[in-house]
Amino acid sequence: MKFSKKILGSIALICALAVAGNAASDKVTWKLATSWNAEFPPFTDSVANMAKMVEEMSGGEFQIKVDAVNKHKSAFGIMDMVKLGQYDMGHTASYYYKGKDPVLLMFTTMPFGMNALEQYAWFYFGGGMDIMQKSYEKHGMYAFPGGNTGVQMGGWFRKEINSLDDLKGLKMRIPGFAGEIFAKLGCSVTNIAPGELYTSLERGTIDALEWVGPGMDVSMGFHKIAPYYYTGWHEPATELQFVVNKAKFDKLSDKNKAILKTAMKTAAYDMLIQNYDMSATAWDKIKTEYPNIKIKSFPKPVMDAMRQANADLIAEQSANNPEFKRINDSQQAYMKKARAWTNIGEFAYIRDNQ
Amino acid sequence: MKFSKKILGSIALICALAVAGNAASDKVTWKLATSWNAEFPPFTDSVANMAKMVEEMSGGEFQIKVDAVNKHKSAFGIMDMVKLGQYDMGHTASYYYKGKDPVLLMFTTMPFGMNALEQYAWFYFGGGMDIMQKSYEKHGMYAFPGGNTGVQMGGWFRKEINSLDDLKGLKMRIPGFAGEIFAKLGCSVTNIAPGELYTSLERGTIDALEWVGPGMDVSMGFHKIAPYYYTGWHEPATELQFVVNKAKFDKLSDKNKAILKTAMKTAAYDMLIQNYDMSATAWDKIKTEYPNIKIKSFPKPVMDAMRQANADLIAEQSANNPEFKRINDSQQAYMKKARAWTNIGEFAYIRDNQ
Repeated sequence: MKFSKKILGSIALICALAVAGNAASDKVTWKLATSWNAEFPPFTDSVANMAKMVEEMSGGEFQIKVDAVNKHKSAFGIMDMVKLGQYDMGHTASYYYKGKDPVLLMFTTMPFGMNALEQYAWFYFGGGMDIMQKSYEKHGMYAFPGGNTGVQMGGWFRKEINSLDDLKGLKMRIPGFAGEIFAKLGCSVTNIAPGELYTSLERGTIDALEWVGPGMDVSMGFHKIAPYYYTGWHEPATELQFVVNKAKFDKLSDKNKAILKTAMKTAAYDMLIQNYDMSATAWDKIKTEYPNIKIKSFPKPVMDAMRQANADLIAEQSANNPEFKRINDSQQAYMKKARAWTNIGEFAYIRDNQ
Repeated sequence: MKFSKKILGSIALICALAVAGNAASDKVTWKLATSWNAEFPPFTDSVANMAKMVEEMSGGEFQIKVDAVNKHKSAFGIMDMVKLGQYDMGHTASYYYKGKDPVLLMFTTMPFGMNALEQYAWFYFGGGMDIMQKSYEKHGMYAFPGGNTGVQMGGWFRKEINSLDDLKGLKMRIPGFAGEIFAKLGCSVTNIAPGELYTSLERGTIDALEWVGPGMDVSMGFHKIAPYYYTGWHEPATELQFVVNKAKFDKLSDKNKAILKTAMKTAAYDMLIQNYDMSATAWDKIKTEYPNIKIKSFPKPVMDAMRQANADLIAEQSANNPEFKRINDSQQAYMKKARAWTNIGEFAYIRDNQ
């Protein structure tokens, strides 16, 4: 039996195409830069969880290599590196880039804003995702929720705050929009590197600071030197972001797009739950080992003044920036109806079981 | 140029193996049975969302066909059909099967138990998933969270409940563990088919009923005939379940296992958020169109009596069933520390922003 070269060639070609078409076409290796050090749970767990899901769901065909800050040296340069394509994607917090574009801060959290469930409902069912994509499009990237901390605590204070007067001259480490609010109320607001926070608080360089919540605060040790732990108001649902280079994402196969989107979404939800567990466990430990710690809420006149300062800041931004106003209007309208449900649902349940 | 038959045969075999090994091995079509009618949002959306993610992430290689109750005619037979392999998987609520195995009700929700965030933290970080797998293993299947309703409302009442006396002889539709509690307090507890609930309430065949929350209640129209809407206590975080035939799951490729698990997890979280949005939107509509509706909480003596009746029921079950006791102990211990965090975190934030 004889076969011509032509037939043999055809067989080989069909065979090669079949293998290539079905197996090799989706092979992708991506690089991701984070705003965090290599070990910074639960933020870094969200990234690792996402990358692991992508690898497993693609049968190893889609791999994401993660570089932490110690590697790329640019905690707050994630947007630029992703925009320029130095990294395919990043994991960061949108509000770090308010200097670049003020509207970006609104995709992380807002003082007196939505809690985590309300905010996810706004993102996924209240138009928030479309709004966020429009704001990120002009920076050449897509943005996706990247993990939520839930309500952050108001911070650790060495002295009790009984009135607005107690805030005058108070030296506090509190960054961002909330820092501007405290500054308006007469605080001396400073920023200090994380590694120096404990010593600064211990030595009285600062009188107070905010970090995150029990789960992430416990390893910092603030509870050993500041007995007043204030409840939250300024970051009710801090959402991190996965940012993805638009051109790179658009080039992915439909399958890899679906895998990446689902993995990012799941990792974001998972981080909210992980941080809930971390905070429950850490608060249990803190209150057992340091029974002198007192949970306080700011007195009503202080809360009212902070609420007014926040409204003033939003009004200033909105007056100069129609996009800021449009996004704030969408969030406020959604929060109004979501909070009415929260009040008779989740809130009433906990209230009636005290 | 000549090739022997043997060489040609080898080339063909290599070619076939290459194609099969890389492409065809994961081709899977599964059948899923639900406990719901074809259109029953958000429950049916959770299933459709999961199946869509599986299809897209597998590039169409893994398909899940969904049969609703109108097809298989057995809303409460999902476990049996999945166990026997008539369906590969199902979407149902674990507490429907407490007659088969009392411990199964604890994976849905418990009166006065954990809220949704607390319960997900218990499942994923507090040992709950392992406990659930052990309980389902003896029924030949795996179970996974399938979507959470969040806090369910306490129900629609035609008359206000001011004391325990008002419950005596009250005719109420409320199934499950909560029904047993109301029966202990002197209610006449009945079950009525969903399609007859509105007419029964309107004609006084029953005085009260519970369904879910604003998002799922609004289309039933109860707010038109019962002006008292009570806050929740009996189903603080109703989690549906995906149940999967163990042998079928074990036979999936690692890739398809990862795809299915991630899709189920994401769909479950998504349903919690979707139902939050549905309830926010529906409650906004109800309170605008029916301003006479009054939100009420049961008076403290009634809540205390319900709490005691619940504790008695749990004690009875635990005395006869070491597995029930073990699961309840795990949930109670986890809830204790999670609730302490809820109180100073999510709860305090909403409380201080009333």
